[in-house]
Amino acid sequence: MLEKLKEEVYEANMDLVKNGLVVYTFGNVSGIDKDSSIICIKPSGVDYGKLKPEDMVLVNLDGKKIEGRLNPSSDTKTHLVLYNNFKGIGGVAHTHSKYATAWAQAKRPLYCLGTTHADYFNGEVPCTKVIEDKNIKKGYEHETGNLIVETFKNLDYHEMKAVIVASHGPFSWGENAKDAVMVSSILEIIAEMNIYSVIINPKVKNIKQSLLDKHYKRKHGKNAYYGQKKQ
Amino acid sequence: MLEKLKEEVYEANMDLVKNGLVVYTFGNVSGIDKDSSIICIKPSGVDYGKLKPEDMVLVNLDGKKIEGRLNPSSDTKTHLVLYNNFKGIGGVAHTHSKYATAWAQAKRPLYCLGTTHADYFNGEVPCTKVIEDKNIKKGYEHETGNLIVETFKNLDYHEMKAVIVASHGPFSWGENAKDAVMVSSILEIIAEMNIYSVIINPKVKNIKQSLLDKHYKRKHGKNAYYGQKKQ
Amino acid sequence: MLEKLKEEVYEANMDLVKNGLVVYTFGNVSGIDKDSSIICIKPSGVDYGKLKPEDMVLVNLDGKKIEGRLNPSSDTKTHLVLYNNFKGIGGVAHTHSKYATAWAQAKRPLYCLGTTHADYFNGEVPCTKVIEDKNIKKGYEHETGNLIVETFKNLDYHEMKAVIVASHGPFSWGENAKDAVMVSSILEIIAEMNIYSVIINPKVKNIKQSLLDKHYKRKHGKNAYYGQKKQ
Amino acid sequence: MLEKLKEEVYEANMDLVKNGLVVYTFGNVSGIDKDSSIICIKPSGVDYGKLKPEDMVLVNLDGKKIEGRLNPSSDTKTHLVLYNNFKGIGGVAHTHSKYATAWAQAKRPLYCLGTTHADYFNGEVPCTKVIEDKNIKKGYEHETGNLIVETFKNLDYHEMKAVIVASHGPFSWGENAKDAVMVSSILEIIAEMNIYSVIINPKVKNIKQSLLDKHYKRKHGKNAYYGQKKQ
Repeated sequence: MLEKLKEEVYEANMDLVKNGLVVYTFGNVSGIDKDSSIICIKPSGVDYGKLKPEDMVLVNLDGKKIEGRLNPSSDTKTHLVLYNNFKGIGGVAHTHSKYATAWAQAKRPLYCLGTTHADYFNGEVPCTKVIEDKNIKKGYEHETGNLIVETFKNLDYHEMKAVIVASHGPFSWGENAKDAVMVSSILEIIAEMNIYSVIINPKVKNIKQSLLDKHYKRKHGKNAYYGQKKQ
Repeated sequence: MLEKLKEEVYEANMDLVKNGLVVYTFGNVSGIDKDSSIICIKPSGVDYGKLKPEDMVLVNLDGKKIEGRLNPSSDTKTHLVLYNNFKGIGGVAHTHSKYATAWAQAKRPLYCLGTTHADYFNGEVPCTKVIEDKNIKKGYEHETGNLIVETFKNLDYHEMKAVIVASHGPFSWGENAKDAVMVSSILEIIAEMNIYSVIINPKVKNIKQSLLDKHYKRKHGKNAYYGQKKQ
Repeated sequence: MLEKLKEEVYEANMDLVKNGLVVYTFGNVSGIDKDSSIICIKPSGVDYGKLKPEDMVLVNLDGKKIEGRLNPSSDTKTHLVLYNNFKGIGGVAHTHSKYATAWAQAKRPLYCLGTTHADYFNGEVPCTKVIEDKNIKKGYEHETGNLIVETFKNLDYHEMKAVIVASHGPFSWGENAKDAVMVSSILEIIAEMNIYSVIINPKVKNIKQSLLDKHYKRKHGKNAYYGQKKQ
Repeated sequence: MLEKLKEEVYEANMDLVKNGLVVYTFGNVSGIDKDSSIICIKPSGVDYGKLKPEDMVLVNLDGKKIEGRLNPSSDTKTHLVLYNNFKGIGGVAHTHSKYATAWAQAKRPLYCLGTTHADYFNGEVPCTKVIEDKNIKKGYEHETGNLIVETFKNLDYHEMKAVIVASHGPFSWGENAKDAVMVSSILEIIAEMNIYSVIINPKVKNIKQSLLDKHYKRKHGKNAYYGQKKQ
């Protein structure tokens, strides 16, 4: 069942490799079928070189396996919390991409230092707190999802499609699995550029609100004028 | 019309990709036909992987579309200001290349730290001020062009073919579209090297005037002796 | 004799090149045949481009050459000390990979800054002291091995499969030659990410013990739940 | 004449490209025919993509052109000073490779931070003073050569085959053109690693003399035991 979704999620996972965002078995991408609320996700610990569309695992929103020979990603529960709370998203990606992860390791949000950032994210990409010990015990992956949701209590997940999980790495989401990976890829580019900016000027600051608004809104929302009209 | 220019501008845009200066829909290159004063530019928001010569858009110096199925680059007005003020330039390139953009994000000029730089640019590559709020409102892209022109009030755009737009990224120009891209590419190499120099010695300074003069003038102007005589 | 081991060790040496961990004649990988206690190792100073399986050299645990036309790696004695002391390891790799070596040159352990690290190494990857002059004289390569063993007197080499030799570079080990190279490769990725984290936040600290335990143990040991059950 | 030398010098120039040490028309390699004392060098300002063996230029030790359609490299006079003073060298390479040039721009010697360095260079790779104004006027390229020779007044050019020219970039030499390029390539690798070490520990220091001696001498000189006996 859901062969098309499996193919899409498989392709999105392979895009992680093509975009240089993962090596070995790092990372995982999922997508949701909105009609059935069934989630398709990468199996746990399988090398990308050996991955096939039919290896994708189907689970429902409670985490029950619906179909699949293999165990789903060990991070599945984090994905589920995101689907349950960020209504309407269609895909989630998690990587240990080196530049974004460096920010996670430094426990810092990804500053909004320029228009490249403002074209994609409406402000700083937030960094969560470090997960509490009691939550590690209670259910690490589920609570990582809750930590992200808590971090977004004053943020709009439609305008901020990524998060830096402190000491861990980035998660991103989007309209579908492919879009979530695209956000991860943009995030990685900005994470890299920002490191260089910090070297040049250790006191760099976020760009001013007016410039952020201008760039974000020329690409997003009802007054956007970047690109071609969608047909 | 202007099929040859379209082909050249298309090739120059694709050179951005080949030289690793852009990903996704970032960046844009234009060229001008000097006889008709018609400008050819990349369409807005089109993936380089799908770009074709016939997608190029023709506009006049007032920004009126002359030919083309698609919308021109959202940065077209910035290009127009440059063509209107820097008489004689034949091409303009804009990228979000990671190293040059890092300097823009840090709001710093690109220091002239060595002879590699002096071979191409006659001094520091200037960084503009951050665009004022009133100018963002008045017409962001047009005023970005004016900001560049203002930054060059005491500079010769023939000897300094690039600028760092603060919080944004680099623009470059040259004899034609291909040349403008070449300048962007050199700028990126120097921007990268200079970051490493800052790491090694956070107090690096511009090279002395005599050495800058020697290198710039052995490649440029009437006493140049680098390279082969042009036939 | 031991043709299969020679082939494996040859492949593992070539993996160093494929993974970008060595250039020229840098680095060396060995593997042991547990039945005969014979070690197979790369010959000294041979370009990877010219290396063939039949060039591999066989030595016993005392360093006596058993078979092979060429001299074994000049680092053979270091490998032997590791096999003699870290019972049960099946392969050893040594590289001058740029990021891990940068930590060796800085004489610093590889901090455990995130879950990527915790997934593979149970704590900081230790950095040895600088080898003493008397030990350089006494037998440099053998004493480098002893220095590693001394550094591990309170560490479990099963849970920490790599070391940074101060002023020198990394050594790693594993179940076999291929596994040792994989550890080197992971080490290099983490060494790179950690450099970026230090740039962003020069005061970065190790992650907390509870998070290290969680990640290390979800992949290793009897309660591991990452990946697929081995069949 | 000297077709074999031209071929070798052409190949060595192309190795600069293969090793990622140059782009565009940057850099140049020469080689000398020891019998005739004729030097073969890259022509000035020619793109590597268009370079052919027959484009190589022959000059004598006084800089007089012996054969060739094109002008020799603008840096020819620097090469000549090196051949005239460092008797017995067979090739010279000059690049603007990004990491080594970053050290030149920072006006710092390349510290000897580890055994990778000690395997190839017997100590710090020196950085010249900045060329004096009077010498820029007197004859820039010739005086750059003299500056290098002056920097080596207490150094053995057989054991230190490279120099960092302040504000400019690296020069290297060796038994022949190919060997000179290999030295440039090693220099670049070490220049890169050392930048990372400076990030990790801004107070890094040279390794101790005993470790430098051990590594340099296990690869060089009459007691060397690295590699295979030459046949």
